[in-house]
Amino acid sequence: MQSRAAHKQPEGRKQTFDAKKYFDDRRALVEKKLGEFLPADEPELLWESMRYSVLGGGKRLRALLCIAAFETVENIYIKDIDIDDLEISKVLPCACALEMVHAMSLVHDDLPCLDNDDFRRGKPTNHKVYGEATALLAGDALLMRAVEVLVGATPRTIDASALLEVAEALTRATGADGMVGGQIYDLIYTQESGSGEANKLAELQRNRTEINESVVEKIHSGKTCALIRFSLWSGARLAGASSAQLTAIEKFGDILGLAFQITDDLLDVTGDQQTLGKTPGKDEAADKATWIRLFGIDGAKAKLSELENEGTRLLNENGLNKDDFNALESLLNLAIHRKK
Amino acid sequence: MQSRAAHKQPEGRKQTFDAKKYFDDRRALVEKKLGEFLPADEPELLWESMRYSVLGGGKRLRALLCIAAFETVENIYIKDIDIDDLEISKVLPCACALEMVHAMSLVHDDLPCLDNDDFRRGKPTNHKVYGEATALLAGDALLMRAVEVLVGATPRTIDASALLEVAEALTRATGADGMVGGQIYDLIYTQESGSGEANKLAELQRNRTEINESVVEKIHSGKTCALIRFSLWSGARLAGASSAQLTAIEKFGDILGLAFQITDDLLDVTGDQQTLGKTPGKDEAADKATWIRLFGIDGAKAKLSELENEGTRLLNENGLNKDDFNALESLLNLAIHRKK
Repeated sequence: MQSRAAHKQPEGRKQTFDAKKYFDDRRALVEKKLGEFLPADEPELLWESMRYSVLGGGKRLRALLCIAAFETVENIYIKDIDIDDLEISKVLPCACALEMVHAMSLVHDDLPCLDNDDFRRGKPTNHKVYGEATALLAGDALLMRAVEVLVGATPRTIDASALLEVAEALTRATGADGMVGGQIYDLIYTQESGSGEANKLAELQRNRTEINESVVEKIHSGKTCALIRFSLWSGARLAGASSAQLTAIEKFGDILGLAFQITDDLLDVTGDQQTLGKTPGKDEAADKATWIRLFGIDGAKAKLSELENEGTRLLNENGLNKDDFNALESLLNLAIHRKK
Repeated sequence: MQSRAAHKQPEGRKQTFDAKKYFDDRRALVEKKLGEFLPADEPELLWESMRYSVLGGGKRLRALLCIAAFETVENIYIKDIDIDDLEISKVLPCACALEMVHAMSLVHDDLPCLDNDDFRRGKPTNHKVYGEATALLAGDALLMRAVEVLVGATPRTIDASALLEVAEALTRATGADGMVGGQIYDLIYTQESGSGEANKLAELQRNRTEINESVVEKIHSGKTCALIRFSLWSGARLAGASSAQLTAIEKFGDILGLAFQITDDLLDVTGDQQTLGKTPGKDEAADKATWIRLFGIDGAKAKLSELENEGTRLLNENGLNKDDFNALESLLNLAIHRKK
């Protein structure tokens, strides 16, 4: 792969780091912990609906980013990790909160008044199984549960002021200045309005300008990058990173977030339905604001190579790639070279 | 009024406390602070929609409960208060967060997939003005903004651990174990399912049992009481209340929450449209699970008298009613004797 060669990795270096085992082990911890944080409680319908959309797999990219940033900054890499590990318990609530927020954004996004999707990850969307009203409320409850888990389950060995800072940053990354803000731009610029609807959204949709790079950036920096950047930043912050480290981690987050989004758009054009678990070509059909529409397939691939090199260089220059532990670099590779 | 006489208030006592001025002054502070916390920012459509449903009045009962509990426990009552007052600034972010959460619950409740309401407080509902998708996302953003304001804007003169505890309690009062949980019970027990819909909610609705007191309690303890109880508890907690005071305050919260809900149900039957700002009789028409349906109008009125006495006694017994400052008692009166 051109981009992997470009940062001149010496022969034999990093052979001790088994990225697949690292990801698998931590995914298993996150999955188990998410099950504990989302018990099959009462009201049954609500918790079942929340569990349906959070548990049972997925890439867990955001959780992995958070954990990897934490371990990188703490400079620990526990090979045979388990759920009772004292170090990892400092970051697991935050990692799980991220997965809950991400899942709730998909639940609300899939609703008829937004994307109106019937399938997600190869199974019926939340509202198809539990009804629209339940899906709406399950999303609300997941948002609150995410914050509750972060502030309530993070051990008090983490300084209370640091935890407050992380909680504030999570809400900012998720809300009007972050993820939800991006969803609104997406809505205004890429969704069709109901014919003749007389509300302010429909009015903006009817009068919108042609899509351009600045709009696509607004959409994706909110919808995707804000939470990805927070994932990395929060892991580093919980590990007590210096402000220089935090700045580097955030820059890396911007690079990885953009790379992740471009890859998503590429997969939508080049992936097949069975691997993706959703209908490819849907974005184009819906006239979505994708990078492909702006740069074409080759331009997007070139941009990805560039981002991969840039991200790796940034990690190397800031001591965030160790000889035997390059989890963050591996996650950048994963974000770009995944098949779904 | 029978219930006011019942707790044998001595002649002349409490004449120095002007409840109307107290409420008006603090409502004005809350309104101003809410405007600051919800700026007319970008994305414009989103912030405008958030501002539309939060600003511009309302009883501000939850904010007042929070502030009154704070001032009562701190044993301060500042007659000529302003927004820069150092003491009140400790509780204003929490009071405003409560109003945001309450407003977002109404925005989501009014959506077509839930109550499908066109009017709220005499003006068109959020989704009628901004479109369904915007209203959905504005609700999400308000939830996050509420937590952000609480953890980010509360001054650091409040102990960080106490603030974390308040943030956790807010998310619990709002989420699946509180407000949202109550909305789900309401949905299952009182809303009609779309004819022949094949989802788990519709299935539960078709097979539900006849409504009874325990169901009505589940609905209201979640939908209304959880947040009202938190309002009082959080104000007291931020003022550094003792655990005995917190227990008394929570009991008072249960009493006031129930009284508030019964009054709501009574007003729905006896109020007129112009004063209410919404269509009276709608609950009954929609076969809602109200206290009136269970106890009748006279039974509900008797229960209110009882609650008013009980609440006042509780305050007196726990030193939460002062000779010159009985804000909490006044709020109980307000909750019961309001006209809308």
